[in-house]
Amino acid sequence: MAWRPSATVNMRAALFHKSRIATVPFYAGEPAGPSVKTAIPGPRSKELAKDLDTVFDTRALNMLTDYSRSSGNYIADADGNMLLDVYAQIASIPVGYNNPALAKAASSPEMVSAIINRPALGNFPPHDWADVLRSGILKAAPKGLDNVFTAMAGSDANETAFKAAFMYRRQLERGGRDVEFTPEEIESVMSNKGPGASQLSILSFKTGFHGRLFGSLSTTRSKPIHKLDIPAFDWPQATFPQLKYPLEEHAAENAAAEQVSIDEVEHLIKSWHLPPAAIIVEPIQSEGGDNHASPDFFRKLREVTRRHGVLMIVDEVQTGIGATGRFWAHDHWNLQDPPDMVTFSKKAQAAGYYYRMPELRPNKPYRQFNTWMGDPARALLFRAIVDEIERLDLVNNTANVGAYLYGQLEQLSKVHPDHFQNLRGKGQGTFIAFDTPKRDEFLVKAKSLGVNIGGSGATAVRLRPMLILRESHADILVDVLDKIARSF
Amino acid sequence: MAWRPSATVNMRAALFHKSRIATVPFYAGEPAGPSVKTAIPGPRSKELAKDLDTVFDTRALNMLTDYSRSSGNYIADADGNMLLDVYAQIASIPVGYNNPALAKAASSPEMVSAIINRPALGNFPPHDWADVLRSGILKAAPKGLDNVFTAMAGSDANETAFKAAFMYRRQLERGGRDVEFTPEEIESVMSNKGPGASQLSILSFKTGFHGRLFGSLSTTRSKPIHKLDIPAFDWPQATFPQLKYPLEEHAAENAAAEQVSIDEVEHLIKSWHLPPAAIIVEPIQSEGGDNHASPDFFRKLREVTRRHGVLMIVDEVQTGIGATGRFWAHDHWNLQDPPDMVTFSKKAQAAGYYYRMPELRPNKPYRQFNTWMGDPARALLFRAIVDEIERLDLVNNTANVGAYLYGQLEQLSKVHPDHFQNLRGKGQGTFIAFDTPKRDEFLVKAKSLGVNIGGSGATAVRLRPMLILRESHADILVDVLDKIARSF
Repeated sequence: MAWRPSATVNMRAALFHKSRIATVPFYAGEPAGPSVKTAIPGPRSKELAKDLDTVFDTRALNMLTDYSRSSGNYIADADGNMLLDVYAQIASIPVGYNNPALAKAASSPEMVSAIINRPALGNFPPHDWADVLRSGILKAAPKGLDNVFTAMAGSDANETAFKAAFMYRRQLERGGRDVEFTPEEIESVMSNKGPGASQLSILSFKTGFHGRLFGSLSTTRSKPIHKLDIPAFDWPQATFPQLKYPLEEHAAENAAAEQVSIDEVEHLIKSWHLPPAAIIVEPIQSEGGDNHASPDFFRKLREVTRRHGVLMIVDEVQTGIGATGRFWAHDHWNLQDPPDMVTFSKKAQAAGYYYRMPELRPNKPYRQFNTWMGDPARALLFRAIVDEIERLDLVNNTANVGAYLYGQLEQLSKVHPDHFQNLRGKGQGTFIAFDTPKRDEFLVKAKSLGVNIGGSGATAVRLRPMLILRESHADILVDVLDKIARSF
Repeated sequence: MAWRPSATVNMRAALFHKSRIATVPFYAGEPAGPSVKTAIPGPRSKELAKDLDTVFDTRALNMLTDYSRSSGNYIADADGNMLLDVYAQIASIPVGYNNPALAKAASSPEMVSAIINRPALGNFPPHDWADVLRSGILKAAPKGLDNVFTAMAGSDANETAFKAAFMYRRQLERGGRDVEFTPEEIESVMSNKGPGASQLSILSFKTGFHGRLFGSLSTTRSKPIHKLDIPAFDWPQATFPQLKYPLEEHAAENAAAEQVSIDEVEHLIKSWHLPPAAIIVEPIQSEGGDNHASPDFFRKLREVTRRHGVLMIVDEVQTGIGATGRFWAHDHWNLQDPPDMVTFSKKAQAAGYYYRMPELRPNKPYRQFNTWMGDPARALLFRAIVDEIERLDLVNNTANVGAYLYGQLEQLSKVHPDHFQNLRGKGQGTFIAFDTPKRDEFLVKAKSLGVNIGGSGATAVRLRPMLILRESHADILVDVLDKIARSF
């Protein structure tokens, strides 16, 4: 079945006086709408999945994807179905499948060289590495954070940031950069014991997600299934404010909940048996179900961390690179002084942490080091992504389309209040979510109607479209959501 | 100064009756020899490094590299110097800089798509992912290990293997795959406490290296500087046998040292307060200084781990992919039954762990999961690397050239016994090392004479050439080593 706009959508479009320009896709060649030809998964996908499962765990399989046929906002599966994709590889495709500008960058001799001559960046950086950084990763740097350490993905971006925090904290405690390690430290650390192995912690928030390696998983508090059986550090967790939506209707009680959380953070900083060297926080808790907090909350968090000499790491792995209608979600906060570190990955395709103070470089070489230390191929791709975002003004696009989409969803939630609860993400670009009681069934129905959507937390549907979403795509999405609600 | 063979080398070449074919590079266009035009670093490199340091820590800088001009076994720097490279990006370049077969693979439409459409592999694998795995990563799989979990680099390859080991062990303790988690486990794990967070460990060896994130660093015992200030798990370490070289002259005392180590492993398995779910071991401890053990040691280790129900993880991140004259270093051991997991990265360019038992897949989806779960672009590159190794018979080449090189070094160590001590790696391809008292100065002199070499441990010089090293390159290397020794 090829997608056709319903009468409802046409009416809504007319009401909003959409300009023609906001409905034209950014790239030619994108399908006019979804097209679902088989059940999903279809027969070919089932056959391929059965075969794949003999060598690769397929129990988390969502769709066997034909990337060569996917285009812009549309993802193609192995049975010829074409879905509007507002999940985008768990929020990690920035400017569309088979984006022509990215294809050009990926075919360049520079990229080919980066792929086949992968350097050990710390030892043998390319002679033009400063230029590559300045024209890409650092061009996108959050205000006030002029340095970067590059990594592979979100987990090790966070973990290397933690390592920087621990080394910085111990340097302060030791009395400065030039103070040598004691013989006791040098000896004990080889047995994984203190004082050489620091007796410090990272403070994180309940329902937060920061990755799944051993250090990052110790700060992740999303779901038991992510953590069961894995040894963890005895690190503290504070309650993330549990706000009521819409935020503007519950201002007073939300502010009170935020203050309780801030007080808990301060209490933990002062009392936890392994003192926190840093806190890590997402601007919007994403994997945990799209939990928001106000700019005021984050300003208070900055204030309390500064006062206690605890570093503030903002995890923008999912929120960064334009999705919230600002390049970085923490740009919404108007902080007096910036976070100490900001981690990034996903839509950047590159990964790492930006940092503020030069002192966050450890006092000796080879303390923050590994063989590859990131990937120049991904740095080149991020540069092309940043250029594309700039050329097409995609952060503003996301802000505008997000406002339009949010308005449509507000209408929809009035028509189907049971199926669209706690709508959230107003003013946060397309970073929008809602709760729905039969969530898993909801997502399956969405596929059959031509839209690929993701869930998070226990009952949330999270929208994570690419930055090239247009109002016309939003209309298709809203129409399908409407149909799903009606079908229950 | 362009490199010219010394009379010594010509004589040696004549003595060894080298066939013409063993001296011809595998690829046209490689320089005939090193060419050193400036001090290293030269003026241009110094200038670029100063600039780079304003945005990127350069204290571990070895050479600012011009990858576009590097070719085959030769690495070019920013001042036009061209060095024979027997360090190869910390042992991670397999088949030469700007290898034409890899360049072709990297320019293919399939690769471009993999770069710009990076999937969340666990959810949205490419429809041909089984084919990509079978024709590349799995074609290279160690005997008996038919499954793979893909990762980004060595550290997370090891850490995801650890996670698999912990989940497997707890599954056995719980009584099977179908036994549900208890409410106590589900509740406690969210506070990072037992019983949900398992009270288990990974046993590793002193002077071993397995990565630098929090779990892997807890098993790494290379140097204090790698570990200081970073919190660590209280996991056990056994002494790695400290053998005397040449091995064949100290057989009896080496066997005794190995038995002491095996006994210590068994004692730790039985007594450590956090029981080991797995041991992890390198076939040759690489970062720790090229410490060898005999096949008999590893067979005993396999026996003791099997007897106690402890998994055996072989870390082939540095030893794998042909460098030792076998595709996997553990192929030298003739194990009765294979290791439970083998981790890989570096020369594979892709990364992950191979595993044996289907039960090492956790009992539920999303327990071993992350957004990217590896990188199809790197899987495609590994496929091209495997094809190239096969086409040019490079594992045999490494065995043969390694034997030739080892013979030359044996001669050299007789001429300069003070500068070439504990020569090791006989029969291990080009995976050769020796100790030298003024190691750091030795490495600097090597550069000035046209060879890029790496160190490891306290006093070791480790040779990590690419698989395309020929006898003619070995001659150049030996000649330079001879000159260095004479210069002291």
